[in-house]
Amino acid sequence: MSFNLEVEEGAKALYQFLLDELEHVKSNINLQTHSKFTDVQMIIDDVMGNSGKMLRPFLVVLSAHFGHYDASKIQKLAGAVEILHMATLVHDDIIDEAKLRRNMPSIQSKYGKDMAVYTGDYLLAKSINVLNDERFDPNNVKRLSQAISKICESELMQYQNRFRALSIKNYLKVISGKTAALFAVSLYVGSIESNCDEQLAKNLGRIGYELGMAFQIIDDLLDFDENNQKIGKSILSDFNNGYFTVPILFALKKEPVELSNYTRKELIDFVKRNSGLTSAKRLAMKYTKRAFARIDTLEDCEAKSVLKQFSKQLLDRDY
Amino acid sequence: MSFNLEVEEGAKALYQFLLDELEHVKSNINLQTHSKFTDVQMIIDDVMGNSGKMLRPFLVVLSAHFGHYDASKIQKLAGAVEILHMATLVHDDIIDEAKLRRNMPSIQSKYGKDMAVYTGDYLLAKSINVLNDERFDPNNVKRLSQAISKICESELMQYQNRFRALSIKNYLKVISGKTAALFAVSLYVGSIESNCDEQLAKNLGRIGYELGMAFQIIDDLLDFDENNQKIGKSILSDFNNGYFTVPILFALKKEPVELSNYTRKELIDFVKRNSGLTSAKRLAMKYTKRAFARIDTLEDCEAKSVLKQFSKQLLDRDY
Repeated sequence: MSFNLEVEEGAKALYQFLLDELEHVKSNINLQTHSKFTDVQMIIDDVMGNSGKMLRPFLVVLSAHFGHYDASKIQKLAGAVEILHMATLVHDDIIDEAKLRRNMPSIQSKYGKDMAVYTGDYLLAKSINVLNDERFDPNNVKRLSQAISKICESELMQYQNRFRALSIKNYLKVISGKTAALFAVSLYVGSIESNCDEQLAKNLGRIGYELGMAFQIIDDLLDFDENNQKIGKSILSDFNNGYFTVPILFALKKEPVELSNYTRKELIDFVKRNSGLTSAKRLAMKYTKRAFARIDTLEDCEAKSVLKQFSKQLLDRDY
Repeated sequence: MSFNLEVEEGAKALYQFLLDELEHVKSNINLQTHSKFTDVQMIIDDVMGNSGKMLRPFLVVLSAHFGHYDASKIQKLAGAVEILHMATLVHDDIIDEAKLRRNMPSIQSKYGKDMAVYTGDYLLAKSINVLNDERFDPNNVKRLSQAISKICESELMQYQNRFRALSIKNYLKVISGKTAALFAVSLYVGSIESNCDEQLAKNLGRIGYELGMAFQIIDDLLDFDENNQKIGKSILSDFNNGYFTVPILFALKKEPVELSNYTRKELIDFVKRNSGLTSAKRLAMKYTKRAFARIDTLEDCEAKSVLKQFSKQLLDRDY
């Protein structure tokens, strides 16, 4: 998806405002991650020059509009969430030996794995620095650091189970930690810091969770899509890294086989033959429906309208 | 050094109490780093089962005795500092490709670099979780996360300058960030959280800084000591990793040569011929003296007596 949401007429002004806010968030990120060591700054510039769609900071600034928006505070919070996310990407690329990140050389391929370790740590620490602002509710800082440990636990669990079939339950635990947790917390902290009541914030957090789950399952489905070169990923990269994602797991439930010697074509045939893609699509749809059902319970407002459109475009990918 | 300080008669009870406290800190660390995923817990057990001398938590519990000691709060704080330190060690071993850590297989050699990346991240996040306790002064949490970013910046700077001669000034910046910062903050936060006044806490922090600088220079000197196998390190490991430490930097100032083709023996001869070791010892001595001069300015108390003895044994290594 790109940030070209087709929002309703009444929400256009808010949507444009949010896009402008993301530019402020970017400036804030540059300020907060600045290093006085030019050698270090050079690497940080590379990371930051390659910012993606900024989904998570968008969720933060958007959810903050369900309450009383305090621009400078929320920009900072959104920046911290994105810095944290970028830290995890820098480290993920080490593990996946990814040559590219968003069509640019990854930090690990340009500077080596070793530099990438410290760069990720530096960003993680900077994100915590930003969060240590007395204006923020300390519980939110706690929630964000818990999200980091959940991400790491999930990545460890996923990595340790490479070339092995996780149960569907454990697969859901993994994607819950590695993706949905940060989506959830982004919507939660943005609204809490804007003085929304706890119930609304929890509801938004839950929407973030459902969106994150659907988003990750769709991402896993796209790994099987021969047309997905357009999103800059090669097909079956998860499988090649040893990660058996949910289409494979569903297929394995129907036909338990040893996959290690399967060619690319054999694997795709195996998954299709056992309705792995269909079952995974159904699962993605389940989370998508839940997210929309929850969005519908929200009181009508511009922010709700943007959230609905955002969710639609986030999950409306070819899969 | 081992934790067998020869403390003065009057400080023996305190010293014994501190040793007992370290056991509580260990239990606290186990509790705080617990993962519900058994696969993850297995790795954490390996990290934690190999705890070292716990210098930094010792500094925290010790400095807290300059004020009003609150056991449960300080144990938790000391644990967070140690978890943070262990996170950096797990990541350092990736970079140095260290096979061993304290004579046990390092996480990166036992589980692979990839697992070590996430394990370090997990510990970093857990340390932040622990620090997000409303009993702690938020400024201290900020100071600790700033210490993490300083450590990372220094490691990045050191790594990027492998096989190159840093200026002495930049070398001091590196060791200040990678070692002295955490020593300093350990003494500072322990005393602040025990309601010491700001001036005393700053003074203790400064002592930590001087101790850390001296400790690191001595560590760098030990890399040239043919008898240092006893501390479980092989000689010239820094040099072999491309790190030109201060004995080499001093020697290069006198005789600027290209070292890349030097054999081990040629390098040692080169350093000795140019008084590299002597100059480095003098530098270590400068920081040691400063630390003791500052300790002498503290009001007499049992904690001061233990700090003095601790510093003496910390820096009294064969070098």
